[in-house]
Amino acid sequence: MSSKLHNLQIDSTRLWNSIMEMAKIGPGVAGGNNRQALTDVDSEGRHLFQRWCEEEGLTVDVDQMGNMFATRKGSDPEALPVYVGSHLDTQPTGGKYDGVLGVLGALEIIRTLNEMNIQTKHPIIVTNWTNEEGTRFAPPMLASGVFAGIHDLEWAYNRVDANGKKFGDELQRIGWQGDETVGARKMHAFFELHIEQGPILEAEEKDIGVVTFGQGLSWTQITIEGKESHTGSTPMPMRRNAGLGMAKILDLVDTIAWSHKPDAVGAAGQIDVFPNSRNVIPGKVIFTVDFRSPELAVIEDMEARLREGSESICKELGLEVTFEKIGGFDPVKFDDNCIQAVRNAVKILGYSSRDIISGAGHDACWVNQVTPTAMIMCPCVDGLSHNEAEEISVEWANKGTNTLLLAVLEIAQIVN
Amino acid sequence: MSSKLHNLQIDSTRLWNSIMEMAKIGPGVAGGNNRQALTDVDSEGRHLFQRWCEEEGLTVDVDQMGNMFATRKGSDPEALPVYVGSHLDTQPTGGKYDGVLGVLGALEIIRTLNEMNIQTKHPIIVTNWTNEEGTRFAPPMLASGVFAGIHDLEWAYNRVDANGKKFGDELQRIGWQGDETVGARKMHAFFELHIEQGPILEAEEKDIGVVTFGQGLSWTQITIEGKESHTGSTPMPMRRNAGLGMAKILDLVDTIAWSHKPDAVGAAGQIDVFPNSRNVIPGKVIFTVDFRSPELAVIEDMEARLREGSESICKELGLEVTFEKIGGFDPVKFDDNCIQAVRNAVKILGYSSRDIISGAGHDACWVNQVTPTAMIMCPCVDGLSHNEAEEISVEWANKGTNTLLLAVLEIAQIVN
Repeated sequence: MSSKLHNLQIDSTRLWNSIMEMAKIGPGVAGGNNRQALTDVDSEGRHLFQRWCEEEGLTVDVDQMGNMFATRKGSDPEALPVYVGSHLDTQPTGGKYDGVLGVLGALEIIRTLNEMNIQTKHPIIVTNWTNEEGTRFAPPMLASGVFAGIHDLEWAYNRVDANGKKFGDELQRIGWQGDETVGARKMHAFFELHIEQGPILEAEEKDIGVVTFGQGLSWTQITIEGKESHTGSTPMPMRRNAGLGMAKILDLVDTIAWSHKPDAVGAAGQIDVFPNSRNVIPGKVIFTVDFRSPELAVIEDMEARLREGSESICKELGLEVTFEKIGGFDPVKFDDNCIQAVRNAVKILGYSSRDIISGAGHDACWVNQVTPTAMIMCPCVDGLSHNEAEEISVEWANKGTNTLLLAVLEIAQIVN
Repeated sequence: MSSKLHNLQIDSTRLWNSIMEMAKIGPGVAGGNNRQALTDVDSEGRHLFQRWCEEEGLTVDVDQMGNMFATRKGSDPEALPVYVGSHLDTQPTGGKYDGVLGVLGALEIIRTLNEMNIQTKHPIIVTNWTNEEGTRFAPPMLASGVFAGIHDLEWAYNRVDANGKKFGDELQRIGWQGDETVGARKMHAFFELHIEQGPILEAEEKDIGVVTFGQGLSWTQITIEGKESHTGSTPMPMRRNAGLGMAKILDLVDTIAWSHKPDAVGAAGQIDVFPNSRNVIPGKVIFTVDFRSPELAVIEDMEARLREGSESICKELGLEVTFEKIGGFDPVKFDDNCIQAVRNAVKILGYSSRDIISGAGHDACWVNQVTPTAMIMCPCVDGLSHNEAEEISVEWANKGTNTLLLAVLEIAQIVN
């Protein structure tokens, strides 16, 4: 099989043109996209995707969360389908590739198989998961989460956006609420191709990231309360400076993350200081510490050291500190067989690769809980994502999708 | 003279009632005041103050900045006046005493002298400085600054509030723009009574703070630029975390301030993180470091160490750092003779006292540049000020104003 597969290539121009065509829907203000979940442009993008799928002879089904499943039949009526996809929704100031490459790359596989008249034993189902980004309706990966049994359907329907609109109402309004029960489908495997959204592959000049783990995540919101007082008239020994406590804890977060090198990371992205006035010592600071690691024990250790260290810092400074765990998920270990299929594909194609850990959450992280799953990453320029300037090369997209094609074919099994 | 003065006391009930009467104008939402400069309620407060002054036989003059001067004649036509006062404007969520005690305390002195039929050689002029707070029209101490020649009149007139309204237009609109040239007056001395706005006097159970210095101030706005990137997918060695740089600099600020104990202070009150999102490493942080000391050399040392240390921290972390000095004034040394008059008053009255440094800026700090000046402080509850919950006791106000009375009388000289 391997020599035959070596000559099997997707059409990189056709793939790229489809990505650019999709990017015309919901354009951003700076060259990227604003095609947030359950907006009119999300609906428009879905219609284009549906038309492309139907042009390839696929049957498009939609479940109650708006997840789209475009089926190419297999030869064996008993064989469970191999799912391939990602998401078409974007950040409000998002790029053209985050999610989109995974959906249209899967469609490109179908186009290639149709063109080459290749039949598989297992059906292949191109998938578009609803609301992966979660910026309009938190949390991210909402619909794949319902699919995997993490969230309840009614709970998801009641998520509201900043204007008080409910997810369920908006899904109905744009006309993409299907009848199919969410998560009822049986699956043989799931593959997701995604841009890295980090700087490693480009820096190391690797074509492909073989994703072995999804990092576990722990978000701890820390509230420090001190005493709001005048920066001039409060002597140093009488200060209870919540900003100073925050500063020392941020330094601790960095130390803790480095102590678990090379895979653990830690930082605080959101920091709110009150009253945030130049001549008032902060009386309160609220910030969120983001720890990630592919090992659950490491996450637990980092959380414990954060609490213990923060309490000690704040006690010393006369501050009150409270902790709230506001988000988290356990590390994800992707399926060995599916990963091996990706490794085999890379080898056949002669691409350079390295193992990589997914630092961000992806639909694949939830789907992995209900079926054997793997992810493939391709580089992105400067690690930039969630940004209209997000960019990849045609060649990176081509190599990522060729790898996806061969890995999917190994699991779906060519019969002719 | 001293035994006679010992029996000279203000009427604390009358003073307190006046403060409470003034507080009815521009009430706050939480028991304090919102009587910002050049609002309709500022005008209303000025009319009440003018009526009270005229009831005591004082002549009220107004200069082009709206500063009010209520004159009680002296016996010697050649003797320059002793000015006594503070400001009637408040913060948007201000207290009833900040500034007001100093103006109505000065008026209470006049009432007491009138009642006792005491004549002085020098005229005594009760003064209300316009826009000390500076929250509606920055900077603070605007009108005393023009009076002392720090700011230009036209420049002051062109200060705009958040709604784009100009100081000059608003002063005219409320009807308090006088004809008198600002700063043309000759002065013999100036005294200002003010609440401490800090916690020292209450904590040490002292009746009176004898203000020897006004702290010099240095505001350095620091901008750190790193790289906005994903908290999950960016390995620790590839991060350029502007938030971490800020944290290490805040710790340095604290260390620098402590190294100049007991009088120097340092902190950052305003900290803005960009993009301030939980899963994005801060690409930029802007914050303002507030250093104060009564010694100019100390301020200069702190500024130099801040720059040098910050550059070293940021270089280590791969960050760019820039500095902008956005505010500052040199330390103020109040007049020895005026301070001695305050010390004498405290001694005659048998009050407890300590020397204190004014950490906040006051009209007296600018006026000190054009005439011998001193300040008197009384305690405030819990050091709380610029807050509607600001509180003092009748007894503290009484002792502060009695001290002011005797100090002013020593300089203005009793003739009968």
